[in-house]
Amino acid sequence: MELQQSPCRFDPQAPALIIIDQTKLPGALVELALTDARQVHGAIATLQVRGAPAIGIAAAFGAYLAVATGEFSSSEQLLAQLQQACRYLATARPTAVNLSWALGRMESRGNALAQLPPHQLKAALLAEAQSILQEDVAHNQSIARHGLSLLRPGMGLLTHCNAGPLATSRYGTGLGPILLGQEQGYGFRVYADETRPLLQGARLTAWELHRAGVNVTLCCDNMAASLMAAGKIDACLVGCDRVAANGDVANKIGTLGVAVLAKHFGIPFYVLGPTSTLDLRCATGGDIVIEQRAPQEVTHQWYARPMAPQEVAVYNPAFDVTPSSLVSAIITEKGIAHPPYENSLSPG
Amino acid sequence: MELQQSPCRFDPQAPALIIIDQTKLPGALVELALTDARQVHGAIATLQVRGAPAIGIAAAFGAYLAVATGEFSSSEQLLAQLQQACRYLATARPTAVNLSWALGRMESRGNALAQLPPHQLKAALLAEAQSILQEDVAHNQSIARHGLSLLRPGMGLLTHCNAGPLATSRYGTGLGPILLGQEQGYGFRVYADETRPLLQGARLTAWELHRAGVNVTLCCDNMAASLMAAGKIDACLVGCDRVAANGDVANKIGTLGVAVLAKHFGIPFYVLGPTSTLDLRCATGGDIVIEQRAPQEVTHQWYARPMAPQEVAVYNPAFDVTPSSLVSAIITEKGIAHPPYENSLSPG
Repeated sequence: MELQQSPCRFDPQAPALIIIDQTKLPGALVELALTDARQVHGAIATLQVRGAPAIGIAAAFGAYLAVATGEFSSSEQLLAQLQQACRYLATARPTAVNLSWALGRMESRGNALAQLPPHQLKAALLAEAQSILQEDVAHNQSIARHGLSLLRPGMGLLTHCNAGPLATSRYGTGLGPILLGQEQGYGFRVYADETRPLLQGARLTAWELHRAGVNVTLCCDNMAASLMAAGKIDACLVGCDRVAANGDVANKIGTLGVAVLAKHFGIPFYVLGPTSTLDLRCATGGDIVIEQRAPQEVTHQWYARPMAPQEVAVYNPAFDVTPSSLVSAIITEKGIAHPPYENSLSPG
Repeated sequence: MELQQSPCRFDPQAPALIIIDQTKLPGALVELALTDARQVHGAIATLQVRGAPAIGIAAAFGAYLAVATGEFSSSEQLLAQLQQACRYLATARPTAVNLSWALGRMESRGNALAQLPPHQLKAALLAEAQSILQEDVAHNQSIARHGLSLLRPGMGLLTHCNAGPLATSRYGTGLGPILLGQEQGYGFRVYADETRPLLQGARLTAWELHRAGVNVTLCCDNMAASLMAAGKIDACLVGCDRVAANGDVANKIGTLGVAVLAKHFGIPFYVLGPTSTLDLRCATGGDIVIEQRAPQEVTHQWYARPMAPQEVAVYNPAFDVTPSSLVSAIITEKGIAHPPYENSLSPG
């Protein structure tokens, strides 16, 4: 995969959504062809495709796949099946709002064109999913440009989890300014938190940045404080899974800790994501549902042998909420939002 | 192993130091018989025995083993070999001061008794190593009692790495108040950071506490902030590898991060260890040498397959330094030291 290519693409002939199986990286680069909504749901739930923008895009194509090959006697019948598929796909993961946002777009588009015959409606739904993908590519470019304007050459940057091309359509959100800066010779020194328990930083971020030629150093999550104390970090860049109206940010577990450390050490903490990640229906982070995942991810997954005693209790939330008071700026495709976020994130 | 038994003991007949191989836990409980200084050095360097007090004890017996079975024509010759062995054993790991402290005691004892014939000198050195072990047991009891006086029944407690019986002679330092409180029905809810990269929290702390019947929940290091934000943590308890004269604390990597989080969330952060962990020759934490360990501990160790791209750079310090400003109290066998530590830790 070239980093500048989209890590997911749609083959309308099959029809199939082609994704990279992110659970196999960095050892193997395996592509999967997903041909129905059930497969797309499974790929999202098992994190074969992950990253808030990427799962939105995948879900949109999943919704299309649910109606693409069926024979419908009426558009009403097609739309009923679309609605059912969207409700099903929305259950794949609870926290990233891009999932329900993208599915909402697909349903709205279908409903708006209900007067079209089934075959034209299908074509319009495919076009809508393609639009969601293409818009994300464009938004990634804008986010990267806005984000880079906050950085200076030679900076030391810390990132958590993976908000790179794999998590989006093409350039990434949190990694966008880093990859754009790399093209422009900024010479960043990047530190990637490995991001337990699923190691997206080690497996995906380190892999993406290393391939792009970025000076990247992998560290365990608990080493970020040591790096900051040593003066090696000038800014933190992370993606986001859902941003509340007041600027509270749900993102990968551990993000809150990085934000508290950044505040303590006087380091800017930047959150990057498309406006599709904003959820103005959530007044604060307290309204965001946090996904709890299986204990085995902590005690068994990846390991050659279990690394904790049998039957021990495990706390394994997939996300945490960083209060807006710890967020220096939120960068979207529209620009750079500063506190107070109630005003700067408002669409008005 | 009963938790109230010492995890290391000495068999004077063999002679051999018997330790639990901590790298095999929690899957297997394997005892090793170490019969010479080279084996003891290897066991410390590879973390088969680890924990600041425990490596001091092991090194003392290692120094004795270096002279235990040799034939010496003079005590001068014996002391020369003892000195050589102590210098060698001191190189096993650089950060925990208990190592050089225990070896210094062995050398001093030998030099003070240089007039004795070799066989009596050997007996005196064995007795000195036994004293170091027995004193640590007594110190652990005192530390547990002093530490428990700071806690209340039902508290939620966070600990990092392993400062339990395995890391010491018997009761532990950071875990001492938890185990003593368990005996007294305190009903603590304990959260154990897994402690990447070597997972001492998952493999050792969770194992020790679970066996002792403590209500323990394992979490990834990056989940501590989420737990604190949810109000689940009332105090943090950690051990220490070296404490400077001003109260700066070197301890397992990630301790600094926990301390910063505790400060942010207004949670007491307690450091527990014997006075043998104080190093008044270090004015501040800046004087403490921090051990850097192999990248493979982060990228390969424990895993069924490598979890990071080949050749990626890795930052892997074994310890960090928590400034005394983040430490609520330092608990030793002598009592509870409060800031300013320049005064409260002073032997005068």
